[in-house]
Amino acid sequence: MVKALPAIEDHLYEQMAGKIHRLIERGTLRPGDRVPSVRKLSQQHDVSIATVLQAYMLLEDRGLIEARPQSGYYVRPRFRELLAEPAKSEPAATACCVDVSNLAMRILHTFADPSIVRLGAGVASPELLPSEKLHHLLASVARRSGAIANRYEQPAGTVEFRRQIARRSLDWGCALSADDIVGTIGCMEAITLSLRAVAKPGDAIAVESPTYFGVLQIIEASGMKAVEVGTYPRHGMCLDELAVAIRRRKIAAVVLTPNFQNPLGALMPDEKKKALVEALSKKDIPLIEDDIYGDLQHEGPRPKVAKAFDKKGLVLLCGSVSKTLAPGFRVGWCAPGRFKERVELLKFANTVSSPILPQLAIAEFLQNGGYDHHLRKIRKSYAQQVRLMYEAIGKYFPEGTKVTQPKGGFLLWVELPKRVDVLQLFDKATEQKVSFGPGPLFSPKPNYRNFLRISCGYPFKPQIEHAVMTLGRLAGKN
Amino acid sequence: MVKALPAIEDHLYEQMAGKIHRLIERGTLRPGDRVPSVRKLSQQHDVSIATVLQAYMLLEDRGLIEARPQSGYYVRPRFRELLAEPAKSEPAATACCVDVSNLAMRILHTFADPSIVRLGAGVASPELLPSEKLHHLLASVARRSGAIANRYEQPAGTVEFRRQIARRSLDWGCALSADDIVGTIGCMEAITLSLRAVAKPGDAIAVESPTYFGVLQIIEASGMKAVEVGTYPRHGMCLDELAVAIRRRKIAAVVLTPNFQNPLGALMPDEKKKALVEALSKKDIPLIEDDIYGDLQHEGPRPKVAKAFDKKGLVLLCGSVSKTLAPGFRVGWCAPGRFKERVELLKFANTVSSPILPQLAIAEFLQNGGYDHHLRKIRKSYAQQVRLMYEAIGKYFPEGTKVTQPKGGFLLWVELPKRVDVLQLFDKATEQKVSFGPGPLFSPKPNYRNFLRISCGYPFKPQIEHAVMTLGRLAGKN
Repeated sequence: MVKALPAIEDHLYEQMAGKIHRLIERGTLRPGDRVPSVRKLSQQHDVSIATVLQAYMLLEDRGLIEARPQSGYYVRPRFRELLAEPAKSEPAATACCVDVSNLAMRILHTFADPSIVRLGAGVASPELLPSEKLHHLLASVARRSGAIANRYEQPAGTVEFRRQIARRSLDWGCALSADDIVGTIGCMEAITLSLRAVAKPGDAIAVESPTYFGVLQIIEASGMKAVEVGTYPRHGMCLDELAVAIRRRKIAAVVLTPNFQNPLGALMPDEKKKALVEALSKKDIPLIEDDIYGDLQHEGPRPKVAKAFDKKGLVLLCGSVSKTLAPGFRVGWCAPGRFKERVELLKFANTVSSPILPQLAIAEFLQNGGYDHHLRKIRKSYAQQVRLMYEAIGKYFPEGTKVTQPKGGFLLWVELPKRVDVLQLFDKATEQKVSFGPGPLFSPKPNYRNFLRISCGYPFKPQIEHAVMTLGRLAGKN
Repeated sequence: MVKALPAIEDHLYEQMAGKIHRLIERGTLRPGDRVPSVRKLSQQHDVSIATVLQAYMLLEDRGLIEARPQSGYYVRPRFRELLAEPAKSEPAATACCVDVSNLAMRILHTFADPSIVRLGAGVASPELLPSEKLHHLLASVARRSGAIANRYEQPAGTVEFRRQIARRSLDWGCALSADDIVGTIGCMEAITLSLRAVAKPGDAIAVESPTYFGVLQIIEASGMKAVEVGTYPRHGMCLDELAVAIRRRKIAAVVLTPNFQNPLGALMPDEKKKALVEALSKKDIPLIEDDIYGDLQHEGPRPKVAKAFDKKGLVLLCGSVSKTLAPGFRVGWCAPGRFKERVELLKFANTVSSPILPQLAIAEFLQNGGYDHHLRKIRKSYAQQVRLMYEAIGKYFPEGTKVTQPKGGFLLWVELPKRVDVLQLFDKATEQKVSFGPGPLFSPKPNYRNFLRISCGYPFKPQIEHAVMTLGRLAGKN
């Protein structure tokens, strides 16, 4: 990770950086510790402020420290030093009916209470989103649009929006055209329509374990069954287990999130995505790919989508701008491959078409709003928030707690000691004005009773740290 | 209809009105004829312009003539004089699977061609809607809303919007509160969620015959079955036949549109609504009530909703602003009675929540935008457009054509001579750049093969008259 240092004698700032670097390596300065302030170091070593700043920038480049707004420089946590990761999941291999909606609604209702710190909600802080700019764009398209925008749009949605999504698909390893895309009400409608397009009530759908509860609710509402497949916290669904499940029974479709899975944060390597698509293609099994977190890698290039490897039009790619720009706009899309006509038809029978002006505002932002610049900014924020939350969990949660180490998105999956029952913990925590995503929500059966999802979508403020402390204390008492 | 005239000797304008009145009664001036211009009559009879104008206003009050913008005064058509009405429908009493989606999509796709005059589309002209004001309001709420509006809303939607709908429910004979209402993506999502809340795949749903194809598509997409019930073009579903259908098999729910049914325009009398709700309530059968046209009576008071008679929370009332304000905003609602929690839950699993800003803009319009004033204006426009279309059909369509006489909304249901096959007619007509709603679209089975729906949502311009002429000519050739 750390490059060999060049000759440094004649560079004061490099000497300085070298000293701090050694303090970190030896563990004198530990992850999360504040490094000495610029002023203090400059006084102690009798060097200029500029020299210290240059030293800190060098250490930042090396990934050793990080700046926190209005707070100074801190040693960057390195995941591996702190906590163990949860193991690959081992769900039962049976198809079963889903019953998570009631639990989901119970939790959703706690969200209405503004005094509760929602550690579980998979939402980005509005502060991190370009809300003002988007509202300005919406105002502007509304003013510019004549009466003609006040009409029923075709079910597929406005071409301006579809064109921008098609353009961006190049970044995902695809080359979609506007005609390949159907606009939807967020990613949820995209998955709903996709699933209904390829499967019918009673059909078995393979899902990751754990998986996003929204997917389970769609399966439940559609009268389908879920087959959980073991999933690695780092690399996603186990393809061998999927193959076994497919041999064992008819699987009508697979729903998964290869990029920064919810709740695991798992990133399926591109080679594995390719193998997955090829294996399903041999059996003609449609793959519904949820890419809602795909733009949110913490570093490196944007990962490809599984659809990039789709030669038979069997992948239905679903996405939205809800995690990157605007949850309140409800703008999503689906690229349904060979099922496009059916998805369009179901779109009509579900919501007719999407609201026109929000689509136009998002299209405008994607075209001229500096989306890439914005992404760079929020990726950095999410990465930092995830690290700070990770640290806090390490600090406040009971011994034996395990946590995932996601490479993107803003979710953590936490395994508590077996004695903890998170549904009981949930009730106690909400009494103390803290909520989280209890594990059983992420499985069709009440599995994961000692697991929870923690979201890091908000800047890590003292209020959040306090909530984590409360939660850790309650978990420790169990 | 015409009140006895008071003593008129000393009122010149009343004498004048009396003369014209007699010309109309005797058939010298026939429905649709232009009455002499104000200037001409004033010259002929040597009276002032003001006197003639007063005479015409009196005749207008009596419902005998009507003003057409920039065109003068015309004798108002009286439906009964022109064409026969279709009889009550007599559908087969079996439950059957639905297969209208493909036909619906075929027709929908013709809508994308702007050179086609869409006589069938159930849409209001954007010119008649307060589009500019709404866009202005949207711009204004967007500008005023801070980042806080850029969030996931609760599934039920913004309270500002729900409060306005609750307030208006007093006009419908209800007294709903904001908490009784769930915001939806137009009326379509409201019906979708309602149906899924009370019935499951395979269940039989009673519908009017003919009925709105969107309802059939929802039933089809949900894997349910439709049972058509005979329906009167004037007073809606036949309650005796409904009772027979309920005795014969388990009916999971009834979906109907008591106010200005689509496509018949039927208005169920309030007493009949009450009887319907009471009969269903005895059997605990939920009623899904589509009230999307409820605000659009051509004259008199706003009709009540069936939900006004609901004592057990069994009526799921669905509506939207798509026919009155803004199809492009996709703002609808559902008042699901005792099924509210289930509808909310399905709302989450379908689209999570509705876009916030369009709901706020509509709420603002309903509160301060002069909605009632606007309604008075469009009711008058729709009524006139329906009458003009009715006249044109009488003029251009083959002998033996029958047409409904709706008291609200903007749809006509036309019965052609039996020899005409409307699907063949549809192909020929689209070649000539005219489309319409072919009858089979309004039934789960390919019934109504010599019927069609004509929409009068647009001002009756020469282009529309020409399209009606073309269609009539093609129908006559069949």
